Amino acid sequence: MTVETRLVPRHRAGTTERLALSAATPEGVHIATADVPGWLDFHRLTCGTAIRRIPFAELDHWSFAPDTGDLRHSSGKFFTVEGLHAVRPEGSWQQPIIVQPEIGILGILAKEFDGVLHFLMQAKMEPGNPNLVQLSPTVQATRSNYTKAHGGAEVKYLEHFLDPDRERVLTDVLQSEHGAWFYRKRNRNMIVEVEGEVPADEDFRWLTLGQITAMLRIDNAVNMDARTVLASAPLAAAEAGALASDADLLAWFTGERARQDIHVRRMPLRDISGWRRDEHSVRREDDRFFRVVAVSVEGAGREVAGWTQPIIEPTGQGIVAFARRVFDGVPHVLAHARVEGGFLDTAELAPTVQYVPENYAHLPAEQRPPFLDAILSASPDRVRYSTVLSEEGGRFLNADSRYLIVDTDEATTPAEAPPGYHWVTPGQLNWLAGHSRYVNVQARTLLAVLTTHAAGRTPLSR
Amino acid sequence: MTVETRLVPRHRAGTTERLALSAATPEGVHIATADVPGWLDFHRLTCGTAIRRIPFAELDHWSFAPDTGDLRHSSGKFFTVEGLHAVRPEGSWQQPIIVQPEIGILGILAKEFDGVLHFLMQAKMEPGNPNLVQLSPTVQATRSNYTKAHGGAEVKYLEHFLDPDRERVLTDVLQSEHGAWFYRKRNRNMIVEVEGEVPADEDFRWLTLGQITAMLRIDNAVNMDARTVLASAPLAAAEAGALASDADLLAWFTGERARQDIHVRRMPLRDISGWRRDEHSVRREDDRFFRVVAVSVEGAGREVAGWTQPIIEPTGQGIVAFARRVFDGVPHVLAHARVEGGFLDTAELAPTVQYVPENYAHLPAEQRPPFLDAILSASPDRVRYSTVLSEEGGRFLNADSRYLIVDTDEATTPAEAPPGYHWVTPGQLNWLAGHSRYVNVQARTLLAVLTTHAAGRTPLSR
Repeated sequence: MTVETRLVPRHRAGTTERLALSAATPEGVHIATADVPGWLDFHRLTCGTAIRRIPFAELDHWSFAPDTGDLRHSSGKFFTVEGLHAVRPEGSWQQPIIVQPEIGILGILAKEFDGVLHFLMQAKMEPGNPNLVQLSPTVQATRSNYTKAHGGAEVKYLEHFLDPDRERVLTDVLQSEHGAWFYRKRNRNMIVEVEGEVPADEDFRWLTLGQITAMLRIDNAVNMDARTVLASAPLAAAEAGALASDADLLAWFTGERARQDIHVRRMPLRDISGWRRDEHSVRREDDRFFRVVAVSVEGAGREVAGWTQPIIEPTGQGIVAFARRVFDGVPHVLAHARVEGGFLDTAELAPTVQYVPENYAHLPAEQRPPFLDAILSASPDRVRYSTVLSEEGGRFLNADSRYLIVDTDEATTPAEAPPGYHWVTPGQLNWLAGHSRYVNVQARTLLAVLTTHAAGRTPLSR
Repeated sequence: MTVETRLVPRHRAGTTERLALSAATPEGVHIATADVPGWLDFHRLTCGTAIRRIPFAELDHWSFAPDTGDLRHSSGKFFTVEGLHAVRPEGSWQQPIIVQPEIGILGILAKEFDGVLHFLMQAKMEPGNPNLVQLSPTVQATRSNYTKAHGGAEVKYLEHFLDPDRERVLTDVLQSEHGAWFYRKRNRNMIVEVEGEVPADEDFRWLTLGQITAMLRIDNAVNMDARTVLASAPLAAAEAGALASDADLLAWFTGERARQDIHVRRMPLRDISGWRRDEHSVRREDDRFFRVVAVSVEGAGREVAGWTQPIIEPTGQGIVAFARRVFDGVPHVLAHARVEGGFLDTAELAPTVQYVPENYAHLPAEQRPPFLDAILSASPDRVRYSTVLSEEGGRFLNADSRYLIVDTDEATTPAEAPPGYHWVTPGQLNWLAGHSRYVNVQARTLLAVLTTHAAGRTPLSR
């Protein structure tokens, strides 16, 4: 028996170049770039949704389990809020954490118009977004979504991601999410190219990467899910050189994972120490870090008529920043091998700085997080990127951070990085983001900014 | 302030070529290849070690905890044997599992002699090895080893791996181990090149990769730790083509990880159902799969005077095999996205067949594992590799399997692989083995066989 087989090159040519062409295309065929903010505003005004804080007692189908105190839905689906006990050599802590073992899909449809890839982006309402509606992937679906635990409508365009022709898949990788708030959460980050007619529904628009790049410079315009998918795409051209070879970078990272000790176990939410529960929140006794609260989403219209849910609300605006330096003509950013309690494996590469400053405001300067003061005191002409962006609006309420890329120098960020930090090129970060669990979700947001701007030859500085 | 920085190419040139030169060098400077088996025999005869099965009650410092029934050492170090509860859509099971959260080092020192890389290999006794002494990496050290929980001697050559000059690191990656027996175990697989004099102690020899390749064809000569380190080295030249591009292969694997459901939790060993504990063993009521037993290691001499320990003993010899086909001149093997309860993340790429046949002997043919019969009934002229090799002798007693690479055809293994299986080239597997948790430990053994033979231009068939 013979069967015809056809070999293909191991390295699929042209994907990076096609993405770069899209990034370098500042206008698309479907909507003018200048009109995108207004289109988002229109959906904000017309979505008719109101978010109201409610006491836990008003949650519908959600309750604290009598035995564990875990917060859960009566269907057993969606997610639970449980307790986590983490032990590190320097101390231990307990906290609430979201447990959501299902792998969801964050998917963007791509299609060529006039020879340029466009991406089908959605004006999507999420209750935790400070401005409700943001530019989002074509599909954001938990498995509960598409098995209809919501009792809601079909997820539009989902069929393109459930069984795609593999040769049309431009990106498909499992990525971690916030290790401080999620227990080992991961989502599938996909870009799938389609041929043939795909009509865009009224809350969808085909945009070039150049158009999305422009939106990344506007506060709270592009949601987290869109940012992480873009960061996973093979957008970066390989730099000729770097401070360390790829092999040396991996060896350093392996050493970081091996030397870091963290032991975590889940525990009943009722039993975590240092936190207290009242009618409206589960919060730390010192009010730092975050609270678990409840909201009612009213008049949402599109997917379901309305719902209530628990949601995590950070206590202040975060600062998320990469220090950036150019060595011998090649830009590098200073990555931090950061340990978070909810990571599947110890540490991931994080931005240079990732903190909510007010959690540390009571500490003397020398005990504050490394590099935080260097970033906060940078002169404006060294700030290459500064935009307020929020995290997943389905799980986090008003979780916005100022995302920064700041040029630094030898005095504040030496070429010989301190233990736990390593200079990497955007190309190296993008290479690692092609695999799971190397680059954390905050670093992926800044990586998306770096790679889209570089590919589109859009200067970073304002 | 200016500091001189020097960029290096992202891709370090020459490592693959230098490894290939070593693989193509059938004799080394230190010991004749034909003398290596005799040298291992000498250490077998002179090590003076006897392994004796003992009842659990004779274990020294090991006991079943009164509250959980977990088997543990009084120091809290080494490892514990606990219970695991695993739930999959098709059913659930409980089993004992080894919990050893520490990351150990499996390290091989490399050094050029006469322009050819040699590797410092040890004739090492491990109590579970069927023949006690096998060719092992320079260093096999748990963290308990090097923090002296043993109360034993220094680990020789360890200093080269604890803080190596990164530019001399040829391989450094965390790899998973047996997901059926270990809970999320991982070890650091390292090859570090040294310059200058490094004297070889009497139980160490410098061997070329060609010499090690010859040893891989002898039953139980090369231990598991050596095999996984070799598989992690960038040995494979990239093939020009494959049935699927690297990107498509990753997309398929992401889909497999996303669609597979397994939920595991640790539980008290005392409470697992379907198993019973007697004086000498913890075993399944139907005696399938494996037993937990205890051994006394007497007169071991080198590291410590003797010790007792629990150890896992599989119930029969395994069959571990890759089906191999050549498509358009490029060899491929059929990888299986296999779910094991102890994996950190759902599935890893495993050999086509990985089973202990007698665990399935009672089942009708159509319920036996896929491809098992095709491998077992292959005519001898299609068997390209067939060697009995054993797993980690520090944790597993007589855990030997026949490792096979078998040429197959369209009738038994179609080019269009069934769900859960994918054809991959050795180069693709070797690329993935450069990252954590893609390639399981059994597949890495066969990968080491494939890459060393190909790099050394040693024909696979006998």
